[in-house]
Amino acid sequence: MPAEWQPHAGCWMLWPERRDTWRNGGKPAQQAFVEVAREISRFEPVTMGVNPEQFRNARALLPPQIRVLELSSNDAWIRDSGATFVVNDAGEVRGVDWIFNAWGGLEKMMYFPWDLDEQVAPKMLEIEALDRYRAPLVLEGGSFHVDGEGTLITTEQCLLHPNRNPTLSRAEIEQRLRDYLGIKHIIWLKRGVFEDETDGHVDNLCCFVRPGVVALTWTDDRKDPQYERSAEAYDRLRSARDVKGRRLEIHKIHQPEPMYMTGEEAAGLDIVDTAISRPEGERLAGSYINFYIANGGVVAPQFDDPHDRPALQTLADLFPNAQIIGVYAREILLGGGNIHCITQQQPAGSDNPQALERSYV
Amino acid sequence: MPAEWQPHAGCWMLWPERRDTWRNGGKPAQQAFVEVAREISRFEPVTMGVNPEQFRNARALLPPQIRVLELSSNDAWIRDSGATFVVNDAGEVRGVDWIFNAWGGLEKMMYFPWDLDEQVAPKMLEIEALDRYRAPLVLEGGSFHVDGEGTLITTEQCLLHPNRNPTLSRAEIEQRLRDYLGIKHIIWLKRGVFEDETDGHVDNLCCFVRPGVVALTWTDDRKDPQYERSAEAYDRLRSARDVKGRRLEIHKIHQPEPMYMTGEEAAGLDIVDTAISRPEGERLAGSYINFYIANGGVVAPQFDDPHDRPALQTLADLFPNAQIIGVYAREILLGGGNIHCITQQQPAGSDNPQALERSYV
Repeated sequence: MPAEWQPHAGCWMLWPERRDTWRNGGKPAQQAFVEVAREISRFEPVTMGVNPEQFRNARALLPPQIRVLELSSNDAWIRDSGATFVVNDAGEVRGVDWIFNAWGGLEKMMYFPWDLDEQVAPKMLEIEALDRYRAPLVLEGGSFHVDGEGTLITTEQCLLHPNRNPTLSRAEIEQRLRDYLGIKHIIWLKRGVFEDETDGHVDNLCCFVRPGVVALTWTDDRKDPQYERSAEAYDRLRSARDVKGRRLEIHKIHQPEPMYMTGEEAAGLDIVDTAISRPEGERLAGSYINFYIANGGVVAPQFDDPHDRPALQTLADLFPNAQIIGVYAREILLGGGNIHCITQQQPAGSDNPQALERSYV
Repeated sequence: MPAEWQPHAGCWMLWPERRDTWRNGGKPAQQAFVEVAREISRFEPVTMGVNPEQFRNARALLPPQIRVLELSSNDAWIRDSGATFVVNDAGEVRGVDWIFNAWGGLEKMMYFPWDLDEQVAPKMLEIEALDRYRAPLVLEGGSFHVDGEGTLITTEQCLLHPNRNPTLSRAEIEQRLRDYLGIKHIIWLKRGVFEDETDGHVDNLCCFVRPGVVALTWTDDRKDPQYERSAEAYDRLRSARDVKGRRLEIHKIHQPEPMYMTGEEAAGLDIVDTAISRPEGERLAGSYINFYIANGGVVAPQFDDPHDRPALQTLADLFPNAQIIGVYAREILLGGGNIHCITQQQPAGSDNPQALERSYV
């Protein structure tokens, strides 16, 4: 699996519409998704998959350069429901189709059913006419990051959670990651971000920015429950080695001030019994780590927070060759994730595989 | 607009499912469509557009080489609802998106609503990332044929019918055909096949097989109401000239024996008030002309009729470089059309436009 900074053929997204995830009939979230798509499309082609009833609306709201397709889903988290793309030594791109159980299966799913989400990955690959590997592993794309050289980073909280693959040992899970992602070394962090609904997806906590270098969400407030989670991750990262035996360079990015669902926001959601509730006062799992790396650009969440600008500055330092773009993303966060969760890169294929090793950022 | 025998990038189809068009829940028609798709896929890539609820079923029934996509429709007649592809002098392929009114609008539609059909053409073009021309003309792809050199053939019964473009004169309709298809000369036949529900689409009556040469459905039975229609078309063709001033060489293909909807067939259809009824005893508009020309092959309907074999023989004579394949197609005919009606070729683009002028058959 190439790293996210390696060349992309494009980016996939899904259109938000469910009224128990996205307030006010999805209209504010749709505007945020349009903004994310528009910014990414400055760097690479963007495809938006849309449920049939929303097709006209999505087509009308999105800029013309976005490719809008019918691609039914239960919700818009294509990082988790979509295909994970891999490239072989000949430069051919293929897709891995993980088992998806809506972040916890019947015991703790986010919504029911998730039958359309389960078909997102195969449908993406049909559209692109790419071969598909069906992987015997419950896994979401947001639960791991790779450095493109054979190192994968993930969390025990998610990958070893009994609501994902209760019959598999840690060694068996590791073997399937090796088999399907072509990775050789795994760095295990312990827990993800406080109150993250995904059972601790690493993509909200920590990511590679290039081989040997990671960014980690951080807080200086020792009373914030996030503090011990970030500190614990920092300790694990300090003692870790990557696939090449290197120690990691760790860059902290201070999180936004704690945010909570307002009464007005909660009142904008449908009340149902087939999805988790999102009550007033719930802590939101805000983090600047949840950004997307495009061909020559980084699109990162902003929250109208004093930490916004320093976060963008750190990203500018970490990606000196990229344009850094902030998008106001509270409406995405209200749904439980952020920019990385709603995007999925499709790496470029090439007759010249060496060309794929360069980085755009 | 290239002729159908010029090189294709592939073929588009839509999956049949509506239970007031296709008997027995669409199962027999689905088998016939699978067979048509399979045969065409021997020659060129085939894409099947499917409503979301039928996606798994279609994917399971179709061979793996068929690309299966979500592409919602009200029914499966992509020749009529889909895009018509054109190629410019630079070899770039674009699509024409005609206004579709379900073969007659509110006065005489085949079913209501047709909102999804209206979106088939733009969605095809989104998928392929091709530019779209929205044409201000109610028109179906089955109502005309072109020779690729600038000649178009059509019928007055359909194109001048008051249920299509009542506010346009013949000259205005001709001008829009010229503008959007790049044609220069129009041959007007009078009427289409007897009892054809489309108001006389030419693609069930007569088609070009190469420049200057046409095939015409025929009957020797002077008591058959089709006789005077074929004879009348023959007379018009005899006196016609194409864009290069040539007289046409006319090849008759004798129609199958008259066929009628059986009681069992009619009983397999849902009874609704939002679509035309298809009662027992209704004459079916059977014709061998309703075939599809692929890259190196011709896929033609068969009816378990004594005229089947002579029809294939005539096609073999007319397309000496093509493989001629018959598919038993009564189940398609029961829905009101045939193989040409359920297919739509997408011409190949090229950096070398001269390469596009060759014929595969």
